[in-house]
Amino acid sequence: KKRKFEKSRMAKSRYEYVKQFEDADQIPLNVWFVCRIDGRSFHKFTSTHNFQHPNDRNGLDLMNQAAFRVCQEFPDICVSIGMSDEFSFVFRRETKVHKRRRSKIMSSVVSLFSSTYVYLWPKFFPNTELQYAPSFDGRIVCYPTDSNIRDYLSWRQVDCHINNLYNTAFWTLVDKGKMSNRDAEEELRGTDSAMKNELLFGRFGINYNGEDAMFRKGSIIFRKIDDSSSKKNKKKLVVVHEDIIRNKFWTENPGLIPVPI
Amino acid sequence: KKRKFEKSRMAKSRYEYVKQFEDADQIPLNVWFVCRIDGRSFHKFTSTHNFQHPNDRNGLDLMNQAAFRVCQEFPDICVSIGMSDEFSFVFRRETKVHKRRRSKIMSSVVSLFSSTYVYLWPKFFPNTELQYAPSFDGRIVCYPTDSNIRDYLSWRQVDCHINNLYNTAFWTLVDKGKMSNRDAEEELRGTDSAMKNELLFGRFGINYNGEDAMFRKGSIIFRKIDDSSSKKNKKKLVVVHEDIIRNKFWTENPGLIPVPI
Amino acid sequence: KKRKFEKSRMAKSRYEYVKQFEDADQIPLNVWFVCRIDGRSFHKFTSTHNFQHPNDRNGLDLMNQAAFRVCQEFPDICVSIGMSDEFSFVFRRETKVHKRRRSKIMSSVVSLFSSTYVYLWPKFFPNTELQYAPSFDGRIVCYPTDSNIRDYLSWRQVDCHINNLYNTAFWTLVDKGKMSNRDAEEELRGTDSAMKNELLFGRFGINYNGEDAMFRKGSIIFRKIDDSSSKKNKKKLVVVHEDIIRNKFWTENPGLIPVPI
Amino acid sequence: KKRKFEKSRMAKSRYEYVKQFEDADQIPLNVWFVCRIDGRSFHKFTSTHNFQHPNDRNGLDLMNQAAFRVCQEFPDICVSIGMSDEFSFVFRRETKVHKRRRSKIMSSVVSLFSSTYVYLWPKFFPNTELQYAPSFDGRIVCYPTDSNIRDYLSWRQVDCHINNLYNTAFWTLVDKGKMSNRDAEEELRGTDSAMKNELLFGRFGINYNGEDAMFRKGSIIFRKIDDSSSKKNKKKLVVVHEDIIRNKFWTENPGLIPVPI
Repeated sequence: KKRKFEKSRMAKSRYEYVKQFEDADQIPLNVWFVCRIDGRSFHKFTSTHNFQHPNDRNGLDLMNQAAFRVCQEFPDICVSIGMSDEFSFVFRRETKVHKRRRSKIMSSVVSLFSSTYVYLWPKFFPNTELQYAPSFDGRIVCYPTDSNIRDYLSWRQVDCHINNLYNTAFWTLVDKGKMSNRDAEEELRGTDSAMKNELLFGRFGINYNGEDAMFRKGSIIFRKIDDSSSKKNKKKLVVVHEDIIRNKFWTENPGLIPVPI
Repeated sequence: KKRKFEKSRMAKSRYEYVKQFEDADQIPLNVWFVCRIDGRSFHKFTSTHNFQHPNDRNGLDLMNQAAFRVCQEFPDICVSIGMSDEFSFVFRRETKVHKRRRSKIMSSVVSLFSSTYVYLWPKFFPNTELQYAPSFDGRIVCYPTDSNIRDYLSWRQVDCHINNLYNTAFWTLVDKGKMSNRDAEEELRGTDSAMKNELLFGRFGINYNGEDAMFRKGSIIFRKIDDSSSKKNKKKLVVVHEDIIRNKFWTENPGLIPVPI
Repeated sequence: KKRKFEKSRMAKSRYEYVKQFEDADQIPLNVWFVCRIDGRSFHKFTSTHNFQHPNDRNGLDLMNQAAFRVCQEFPDICVSIGMSDEFSFVFRRETKVHKRRRSKIMSSVVSLFSSTYVYLWPKFFPNTELQYAPSFDGRIVCYPTDSNIRDYLSWRQVDCHINNLYNTAFWTLVDKGKMSNRDAEEELRGTDSAMKNELLFGRFGINYNGEDAMFRKGSIIFRKIDDSSSKKNKKKLVVVHEDIIRNKFWTENPGLIPVPI
Repeated sequence: KKRKFEKSRMAKSRYEYVKQFEDADQIPLNVWFVCRIDGRSFHKFTSTHNFQHPNDRNGLDLMNQAAFRVCQEFPDICVSIGMSDEFSFVFRRETKVHKRRRSKIMSSVVSLFSSTYVYLWPKFFPNTELQYAPSFDGRIVCYPTDSNIRDYLSWRQVDCHINNLYNTAFWTLVDKGKMSNRDAEEELRGTDSAMKNELLFGRFGINYNGEDAMFRKGSIIFRKIDDSSSKKNKKKLVVVHEDIIRNKFWTENPGLIPVPI
């Protein structure tokens, strides 16, 4: 590790002025912000590693564990939601982590998630050798009001639902219906949610609402208050698969995002 | 992998407006920019994994390979320099990669570096189990002129020299001189480069300039023209440990950063 | 006025690429923002034009009229507060004016204010020739919550009070107390509001609360609902000098900034 | 003018935190930047005040004098070019004016220009009463290289030429050719520069190159070295109407923008 304490004459070389070119990139005060990461070229990655369709349980569990690690590292992450190859981390309005420097926060999150994903791979895929290191991109988006950040989270959960319903129908048509990919795509074109539900149930006896909640709702990570705990800090980081669109979740878990009166 | 082609009515839900809150974060046109990554809490990481002082060759080789992978992925990285737990990637002025979106570029680089570092760990440390996943932070800094970006690179190489000379002297005093850390620190306080060179040579017979160039100059990665190659693309990504402060390197390797006339 | 409709070959000259260097400077969505302007070198300006101490009524009336003109031009200015040589214009959260482009909004406001100030000068100072054109600087600051923007306005009104109380005491000591500027300054050093009130009343029989509300509270410009109006649009731009720190003003004038329940 | 020296307890009120919401908006180091101002709704303004077509000499002289005043106030403006209702002010790479704060610089320039325009109006339009105060918007654009900033200036001068040639032809057709606006527009559709020159000369005997240089080239303001001056500072702010696209101007006036070797 480099030593920083010696500032010799040479250190203050004529080149050091270049440090001044770094720009301030502070996130505005008193706004919620989301750091969202997305897998890069994960279509290729999941196919290389033979992920199951439409959902690979081990793959999602690995995503959740990497996200869990990020939430441990950053106590100011209030709540997170993940699905497929993406995860969104919501930081509290008031956080002062890394002086709210955007690049510092964003890079630290995406880096820790990425390295942890590879680190934990053998635990979730003991029989599948990792062929190459995957990567994720990241972005930070700010939301001024409680209502806006709730809508962001709802957006992701609705998206999860839509994509999963589509994918479930698609792969059922392909796997059980013996259709080609193209025919399955054609079959689903223009169908709404009700029609897809009907198709699954009518033709294949599948009750979509009986599918695993992790697939339908995504994974929510947050610090849940455990009143039965004898510890001083009764908050415990948990992964759940609940509806976060309605007020119920937020009322039952106070201290996350204020529920409108 | 999620499917994007179905845009049902529900997808255009009332929550989708939140997408508009993403801000444009385009890097200004026609400027050089550096993406620099730095190890987070690497003092603890290197000590947990028993890295050698003052330089751990395997540790540096692993850094170089992770950086090499990043340079393969981003052809518009013109030149990189690394040392200790940091690496700087210089993108060409003209690059259009990811539409010059700052977050996208920065997160992709730091993510790929981080995941590759863990992925390649067993190759460089076959007998040392990785105890946990390390992480890196990143930043992007822009430089408008050729002279500014050259000065940036010179700054990093001067810093490498200063830190390595100090660390070499310090650990020689501790390891061969049997001094305590505190005494060694005291001994070096206020010494300039000449005095440290003299100390190493006079007391321990060590010629600092005989130390490994990788330790003294850092590692430079770039696409070198190989005229002897029979391939159409005669450029080959290489790692060298040369002086990049003087014009010589840049004159011998045209096409990287223009040398002033 | 230049014609824009002819785009000949030459217009698409090789120079036109420079347009792409303009950066997006959109104000974040759904935040309140203030455009505040401040007189540049107004100490010199007011002394050159013999403004009265501690307040020049004509000078303030002129400021108010220039601000009034700005509020007419920008219907999305929700409320404004001015005092001394400054004015703050609060734009509604939802405004789409000039696509929320920061520079465009800020420059238009400061320009119109400045030109109107000079244009109206003779009306307010019929016997004082304007010696030179004054100028103002401007800035835009964003506030995410209703509470933040209320606090901004309260901050300005508190500042108005503090400065005016000080200035009233200072100039009373100088003008009526026949003190030198330095002695008056010395006399007031370390005094709090109560002491200044007492000084004014005890020594000079001046009841500070009897001073003109415009001096004590600043000037507030907003669209007031006039229920007695027979017009369709019952809102009328008015200038008042009321307390805007307490909820009363906001409750009596709904539709400006929501009052917490 | 408000007094700033008294910071009483109340001044540090609980509202003062709002100051922290101001963001850093520093212009990047070592880049050229242009502050360009444009008349807002000048079509209406010029028609209200009966400006002559296609160029109103007094109107342009007034623009030039307002710009001259701005250049006096900001010694770090290296060169300016104006035409029609716009003016571009180029600041030197190295300028430290207002700590390179974007809003401060931009607002000060546009404000001083606007107030001066109104202030000087009676001097240039002694017989035309100003009906209302006009306003200008402004923007700042950064350019990293000498070549980029030269191209910016060339772009404006080419634009001036194109617009003026078009307008000259258009108004000649209308005024001397007795055409309707629509017919004149139709006549010119699709014509290139040569055709417009020919039209002017062939039909009306007008040699376009004989038109006033101010109309054809715009107005350039800069500090010219006057070697014959006996003053210590031999630089004098001048307004010229020369070609600034070719190197000649820049070679003859060294110290403005470096000419490529």
